[in-house]
Amino acid sequence: MRLIATAPLALAVSQAKGLGFLGAGTDSSTVFKLLNDTLVTNQASPISNVPPGILPVGIGFICWGADLKEALSVISDAPLKPAAAWLFAPQESSDLSSWSEGIRIASEGRTKIWIQVGTVANCLEIAKSCSPDVLVIQGSDAGGHGLAQSSSVVSLFPECFDALQKEGYGHIPLIATGGIVDGRGVAAALSLGASGVCLGTRFLASPEAVISQGYRDAVIKASDGGVTTARTTVYDRLRGTIGWPSIYNGRGILNQSFWDYIKGMGEDENRKLYEEAIQQGDSGWGDSGRMTTYAGTGVGLIREVKPASEIVEEVRKDAKSHLVAASSRFHD
Amino acid sequence: MRLIATAPLALAVSQAKGLGFLGAGTDSSTVFKLLNDTLVTNQASPISNVPPGILPVGIGFICWGADLKEALSVISDAPLKPAAAWLFAPQESSDLSSWSEGIRIASEGRTKIWIQVGTVANCLEIAKSCSPDVLVIQGSDAGGHGLAQSSSVVSLFPECFDALQKEGYGHIPLIATGGIVDGRGVAAALSLGASGVCLGTRFLASPEAVISQGYRDAVIKASDGGVTTARTTVYDRLRGTIGWPSIYNGRGILNQSFWDYIKGMGEDENRKLYEEAIQQGDSGWGDSGRMTTYAGTGVGLIREVKPASEIVEEVRKDAKSHLVAASSRFHD
Repeated sequence: MRLIATAPLALAVSQAKGLGFLGAGTDSSTVFKLLNDTLVTNQASPISNVPPGILPVGIGFICWGADLKEALSVISDAPLKPAAAWLFAPQESSDLSSWSEGIRIASEGRTKIWIQVGTVANCLEIAKSCSPDVLVIQGSDAGGHGLAQSSSVVSLFPECFDALQKEGYGHIPLIATGGIVDGRGVAAALSLGASGVCLGTRFLASPEAVISQGYRDAVIKASDGGVTTARTTVYDRLRGTIGWPSIYNGRGILNQSFWDYIKGMGEDENRKLYEEAIQQGDSGWGDSGRMTTYAGTGVGLIREVKPASEIVEEVRKDAKSHLVAASSRFHD
Repeated sequence: MRLIATAPLALAVSQAKGLGFLGAGTDSSTVFKLLNDTLVTNQASPISNVPPGILPVGIGFICWGADLKEALSVISDAPLKPAAAWLFAPQESSDLSSWSEGIRIASEGRTKIWIQVGTVANCLEIAKSCSPDVLVIQGSDAGGHGLAQSSSVVSLFPECFDALQKEGYGHIPLIATGGIVDGRGVAAALSLGASGVCLGTRFLASPEAVISQGYRDAVIKASDGGVTTARTTVYDRLRGTIGWPSIYNGRGILNQSFWDYIKGMGEDENRKLYEEAIQQGDSGWGDSGRMTTYAGTGVGLIREVKPASEIVEEVRKDAKSHLVAASSRFHD
């Protein structure tokens, strides 16, 4: 949600008793503005019961592209420290130690370290090397960037859970993400043992998400997410996004860029058509468009735009009722 | 589970109050033997409370490879009709009408029609054209054959559920499958709205599954199923299994056949090495082996061989406790 999740979205989620995250993305230059905007907005209408010294949102870093020193400098100077830093996609897995340690020092221990993983092996490695406060387990259904090769949370989550328990890391809270968009997905994740869940794609259909109307319309319109989205690197290549380590790709809604790529169109020609589509405004999106529309497989479950706080409240309420209904099916 | 799930496995599952299925597979020549063996075994130690005229197991058909006439003839002649027929992978989706109608007539309405789907569109199409008694929603984590392109049950299941409700097919019970191996997966599926679940891979680690020790050992040994299994057609090609419609491939544990294919080894050479591995017995399996080991992403959650009836009982008990634990986390 790089630069899609900014102060309004993150604060709306936290206001509804979730924890909203800012998406700083592949470069750290935006970190100051994201944190400062959040600070100013929150001063005007403060979220209650926030511990002193804490900004009531987290901030996510795409570590391979972000400048650690710059990020630490901004966090160090910030009057309120972000409640959490979400670390994802380092150039090398070992880079996460410097990120974790650096942020702990810069935030005087106030910023919790959340680290996103997508395999059991990486989950264990990070638990051992970084002492994360939270691990985020991302399954294959997730929208945008994630591992090119992985399973869904259905099997990945419990296998990570068991592996951490076995190795003495059972105290780390685990968040499930990937394909979860409504109360049913949340209920399922909690049944798998999750301490919480992260929704990304769902919030694209909130007015707070910083995306064009064309993108938002494409999210609402999409259905059958397992066949109308795919994991691919083609969208990054056409947009000139370079630098993602090769184990990652991104899941997006299939459109003409993808189909032309599949039919064998050369990348130069495809990129030229993509650049022309940029000029078309909102009509450049959709299945007959070419604009990149990163979204998870759960996109077909999203049918209306709703304020982010209502999404959080609805999802929480529905998760409870689905769990109660499912557990009532067992009689002894 | 073609010819892996035979009378002992199917009956053990039904004995434990699940519904076991025989795997007739790509040809119908085995149908008589599978049903007859089940009849004989069940006569020796009958499952209680089975309605008259019903054999207390289902039977699965891989429709593109099975001879409909032959299947109908066997069902028609059978003194007890299988409780259900599970239809999967027709050459054309429209073939399922003939299968559904034919089996209903041959079984005098005693065999329920279960149809497996993997997209929302196919789910709706089949609901309309075949009036299935049950729809099985298979997600991308499933082992063996399934759609090359799909999402996991996390998003696929609720989207199918909603689409069926909306179109007036909300009365059809839905079974979730793909990546579900233990009580947590079952609890998650029920939270998503499933009437029940189907476990495949998990039963590979039962003594009743008709597989070699090498295959069973590979299932127990595998971990990190999202990266140590993959969907591919290479295993079918090396084994000379031809005929699967092109929308399908199979998920198996990665082994030397796969890695050599990725490295660019020609298919003739790879097949020769595969055929040599057949001669090696149980050591031909495993990550340094070459024997095909179809399994789902949940394979890493399977750590011991257990009788099928114990698996059913354990999974049912654990599902309940996970649902109760998850729902107890909500307080008003």
